[in-house]
Amino acid sequence: MIVVMKPEHTEQDLRQLVSHVEKLGLRTHLSRGERRTIVGIIGERDLIQEIPFTSFPGVEAAHPILQPYKLVNREFKEEDTKIRIGEHVELGGRAIPIIAGPCAVEGREVLDEIADALHALGIPMLRGGAFKPRTSPYSFQGLGELALKYMSDVRSRTGMPVVTEVMDPRDLLLVYKYADVLQIGTRNMQNFKLLTEVGQVDKPVILKRGMAATIKEFLMSAEYILSHGNDKVILCERGIRTFETETRNTLDLSAVPLLKKLSHLPVIVDPSHALGRTDLIPAMACAAVAAGADALMLEVHVRPHEALSDGSQSLTPAALQALLDRVEPVAQAVGRTIL
Amino acid sequence: MIVVMKPEHTEQDLRQLVSHVEKLGLRTHLSRGERRTIVGIIGERDLIQEIPFTSFPGVEAAHPILQPYKLVNREFKEEDTKIRIGEHVELGGRAIPIIAGPCAVEGREVLDEIADALHALGIPMLRGGAFKPRTSPYSFQGLGELALKYMSDVRSRTGMPVVTEVMDPRDLLLVYKYADVLQIGTRNMQNFKLLTEVGQVDKPVILKRGMAATIKEFLMSAEYILSHGNDKVILCERGIRTFETETRNTLDLSAVPLLKKLSHLPVIVDPSHALGRTDLIPAMACAAVAAGADALMLEVHVRPHEALSDGSQSLTPAALQALLDRVEPVAQAVGRTIL
Amino acid sequence: MIVVMKPEHTEQDLRQLVSHVEKLGLRTHLSRGERRTIVGIIGERDLIQEIPFTSFPGVEAAHPILQPYKLVNREFKEEDTKIRIGEHVELGGRAIPIIAGPCAVEGREVLDEIADALHALGIPMLRGGAFKPRTSPYSFQGLGELALKYMSDVRSRTGMPVVTEVMDPRDLLLVYKYADVLQIGTRNMQNFKLLTEVGQVDKPVILKRGMAATIKEFLMSAEYILSHGNDKVILCERGIRTFETETRNTLDLSAVPLLKKLSHLPVIVDPSHALGRTDLIPAMACAAVAAGADALMLEVHVRPHEALSDGSQSLTPAALQALLDRVEPVAQAVGRTIL
Amino acid sequence: MIVVMKPEHTEQDLRQLVSHVEKLGLRTHLSRGERRTIVGIIGERDLIQEIPFTSFPGVEAAHPILQPYKLVNREFKEEDTKIRIGEHVELGGRAIPIIAGPCAVEGREVLDEIADALHALGIPMLRGGAFKPRTSPYSFQGLGELALKYMSDVRSRTGMPVVTEVMDPRDLLLVYKYADVLQIGTRNMQNFKLLTEVGQVDKPVILKRGMAATIKEFLMSAEYILSHGNDKVILCERGIRTFETETRNTLDLSAVPLLKKLSHLPVIVDPSHALGRTDLIPAMACAAVAAGADALMLEVHVRPHEALSDGSQSLTPAALQALLDRVEPVAQAVGRTIL
Repeated sequence: MIVVMKPEHTEQDLRQLVSHVEKLGLRTHLSRGERRTIVGIIGERDLIQEIPFTSFPGVEAAHPILQPYKLVNREFKEEDTKIRIGEHVELGGRAIPIIAGPCAVEGREVLDEIADALHALGIPMLRGGAFKPRTSPYSFQGLGELALKYMSDVRSRTGMPVVTEVMDPRDLLLVYKYADVLQIGTRNMQNFKLLTEVGQVDKPVILKRGMAATIKEFLMSAEYILSHGNDKVILCERGIRTFETETRNTLDLSAVPLLKKLSHLPVIVDPSHALGRTDLIPAMACAAVAAGADALMLEVHVRPHEALSDGSQSLTPAALQALLDRVEPVAQAVGRTIL
Repeated sequence: MIVVMKPEHTEQDLRQLVSHVEKLGLRTHLSRGERRTIVGIIGERDLIQEIPFTSFPGVEAAHPILQPYKLVNREFKEEDTKIRIGEHVELGGRAIPIIAGPCAVEGREVLDEIADALHALGIPMLRGGAFKPRTSPYSFQGLGELALKYMSDVRSRTGMPVVTEVMDPRDLLLVYKYADVLQIGTRNMQNFKLLTEVGQVDKPVILKRGMAATIKEFLMSAEYILSHGNDKVILCERGIRTFETETRNTLDLSAVPLLKKLSHLPVIVDPSHALGRTDLIPAMACAAVAAGADALMLEVHVRPHEALSDGSQSLTPAALQALLDRVEPVAQAVGRTIL
Repeated sequence: MIVVMKPEHTEQDLRQLVSHVEKLGLRTHLSRGERRTIVGIIGERDLIQEIPFTSFPGVEAAHPILQPYKLVNREFKEEDTKIRIGEHVELGGRAIPIIAGPCAVEGREVLDEIADALHALGIPMLRGGAFKPRTSPYSFQGLGELALKYMSDVRSRTGMPVVTEVMDPRDLLLVYKYADVLQIGTRNMQNFKLLTEVGQVDKPVILKRGMAATIKEFLMSAEYILSHGNDKVILCERGIRTFETETRNTLDLSAVPLLKKLSHLPVIVDPSHALGRTDLIPAMACAAVAAGADALMLEVHVRPHEALSDGSQSLTPAALQALLDRVEPVAQAVGRTIL
Repeated sequence: MIVVMKPEHTEQDLRQLVSHVEKLGLRTHLSRGERRTIVGIIGERDLIQEIPFTSFPGVEAAHPILQPYKLVNREFKEEDTKIRIGEHVELGGRAIPIIAGPCAVEGREVLDEIADALHALGIPMLRGGAFKPRTSPYSFQGLGELALKYMSDVRSRTGMPVVTEVMDPRDLLLVYKYADVLQIGTRNMQNFKLLTEVGQVDKPVILKRGMAATIKEFLMSAEYILSHGNDKVILCERGIRTFETETRNTLDLSAVPLLKKLSHLPVIVDPSHALGRTDLIPAMACAAVAAGADALMLEVHVRPHEALSDGSQSLTPAALQALLDRVEPVAQAVGRTIL
């Protein structure tokens, strides 16, 4: 940490700061420039980061030198983390799995119809919402356990592992029982209690980036999960909120190479939620793969205009097929393959 | 809802849309312009809002006409909602209470020291964190029930009602037992399960605006609480995320008159979290009162540089006194008074 | 400047950096921590700020210690700058002048009608657009010199000094001839050629904050004007772009105390453009004054629905009168008065 | 345009609106729902868009139905616009040209060194700044005409057409004389006088998206140029401003397919300015091509750490070569080729 003193600071201010810091077992390093005096603080990172330096008298600013995350940091683990899901899928390796399915599971029949279409296209993983976070209390909130059962039955029939969101610590055991991968939604990226809970299970977790989360906050939320013992975390970019209104959110693809540089965790992309409209999804799916995405998450419905949620951004199976035809050569161009 | 057809839509597209909509018991109203055909959809708002119009073939766009919120809407309840807290405080009336206290309760002694200083200044309500949402898993997470007890003891001694955050549905009963007002933090504004739970208790709820929440989303989250039966909701503006880095967030004071126009609920302002630095708090507290705030929420600590969280934005009791001296005449200038 | 080396940097990287920097006449100060080596760069600020430190091999990051602006910096001039306009107005002192008028001058008659109404209300300064920056090439672009003449005639008749925007360096002489205060619009805040030109005249300049400009960039644009010789710069907050759509922009009132802390220049507020709707203007005008604004800029039209631009945010003279009645007591509450 | 009346509007309000609108030669279409009355306005788009509907008494909101841009609109010209530059380059076709060069031309020797390296790599177009928009008045502002001459000499020697920015209408003739393509920088995207001027020349114009410009505003700025007669406009996405600080801006690649859907103009991408750091450029260059970019604009310098501007984001020729090796297969995967 670099602490910058105000030009008008007193020697007493400086002594108070240094003595406080040294009492905590940290060391200081003083440097007096023409206009500012600077105090470097050296020692245990976690200790340093908790000190409210700018509330000390005479302090102007404080600049952290080290990133606040450790376990997710590539500095501490150089090789890519690869995560096995079911028998056939590995995330973070050469193959790029497609994770597809409806926004919400709406009933057994329509789920089966969708899942069969996906299976016929060779899609290796099923996504579907059982508990749905909806902006309106009057909207369809999901079928709950019933939806989990329907998806689990699809898995039995097709072998597709199941990804589904857990919204509430009280539902964790239930979701754990049925799902292969737990998803933490964008609105829960900083639901620290929930992060702590999924940090204590042994199944992979897809952590979606908060709609307005910085990369640092995103990695700190992943750090929560790892620090509680679960190192199977998959980071998912799903669009950030900007001033633009033509798309639902703005897909931040530069997050992909950036996260892969800062962290060893796999990074996947969900263009459906980012765009909120189907027409731009194929181009952005190609771009995501070219940027280095380790998987694509896509909303698919057999009759989007009848969907109980997010129909506007759901591809039909035919549109998914066309997308796959465009994406596969891009994957090969970057030395990978679509699974 | 106004649905705009694409210029190249077919009569078949139009028939499919109209027939789908009419099957749901809604009426349609057609208008053919030179360049676009427009379909007005008339009927039950909640029904209309769930239809994914843009996923119908031939549809270009859909514009909602009515706001999606009802119970919180001033259109449905004209007079201001006033909320009683304890024996002496009423929120939403002429008096503007100050809610002050430490970010986190750090121990009995330091809390008592802070609370006594606040009480001596005549502050009518105490805030303090028992369960703290912290970006880092390595940061102080709060004392939990112990903190609730300490605050409850302060109330017994001073009569100050207590505001504290609930982060987890599993803690609700515990927090309910000790607190006078439940707070939903900015990161939980769209934790719909938690909103549903606090919607079922009979104590007032301070709902903080999400850091990147639109006004519409903010009101929809309040609607969750009201729709589950609790109409004692207090809206709190606490800064939104922008590109600016000189302040922690950007305090959006225009939210105050806007929310009061759209809704009948009281609106309060937390300049501490918005600014993240103490030097700008007094000016912005004055501005908040001038804009129409119904209460101010302020972080206060006796020794900010020793605070275990948010020390950089905590006022000392002396600074709070100076702030009160500046704010009181502003309150009077807008026909109100500081409590 | 604090330069942080990558953990894997070589001694050769360090030598290259130090030698490059010392060749420029700057000094360095080395500090080796457990995880990072840090190089402090000491010397002439302007020189330091031009070095692309992060493009040196082995460099991870660079943190500037000093603000990049000098002439506008309160560190270099402690007392508030006060600016005289005409015979009766002083900006930056105790009195808060109201600057009012139509968005665009639309003709002699309607301007006279507006100006007479303003004059009758005691408004001390007239604003009006002669050259209008319009998003659409098909919108009314202003009357040009004719508008300047009409406003100048109003001044002759009423004594109200005239504020008007200059958009093009080629128009500067013309605008200079007629106007008392030159305005640089939000879209031209970083039109550096134009800033350079208005830096060379001797009339006051209102510099509007760019819609997405940081405070630092805003002050750097003011620095352009001062560095070319004109120190009569008035900073104007007029709303920043965020994700919110209920208002045209988001009025950032915390910019007022922040700018006044960082700089000695006067700071004024334009709520009309920030909000884009009239209903919230009175509350936000009060808040602006409470936050410390040195003047208010307001759009006024006798018949807003006939305005050729920005009618939706134009107050009628009657609404302005009501606003003044609300704002005056707030001004007094903060030790000032409305002019 | 769809105008929504307030629930409390009077018949008099409605008559005033309808009569005002019909006097302008427009037609209206009334629809009374249960909660709102709606007035459709039919007729000449430009006329309608200038009416400040929300300033009429009794009006709640107004929703435009048609896009405000015409000449740039794909609705009015279905086929892609292709733009010839020099003898060998066509923008908007199958080939994707690379436009590379230094941020600023710093001198004849270093430019020649860079240009020769680019020419050796087969790069078909040279970019370089003669007039530089710099945030600080103390930064290097470009060599002006000298820079233009040096670049023109490079063209004579290598055949590479030259792209350079024009910042000031007074420089237009000079820049026109030397350059093959004129560039309008991000800070001038809404410098409407400059847009009007470049709309009157016959050379292609690269229009950079403003840092906080919506897609609609971006297209309206292009409309300015086309409406003044120049239809050779190339749209350039170069990053938007968000809350993220790890990158200089956030590259919005979804703008590429979106712009190509809404408009017939070619769309290019500048990852250098968006990212502000070199390490992420290759991945994002691949992503840009996969998203449909018609060209890439890249900053290249032989010794980035000696660059007088933007060194931190400048690739070396060797890094450019490596990037080309990665991008070429991606181009082929989407049916194109790198030029």
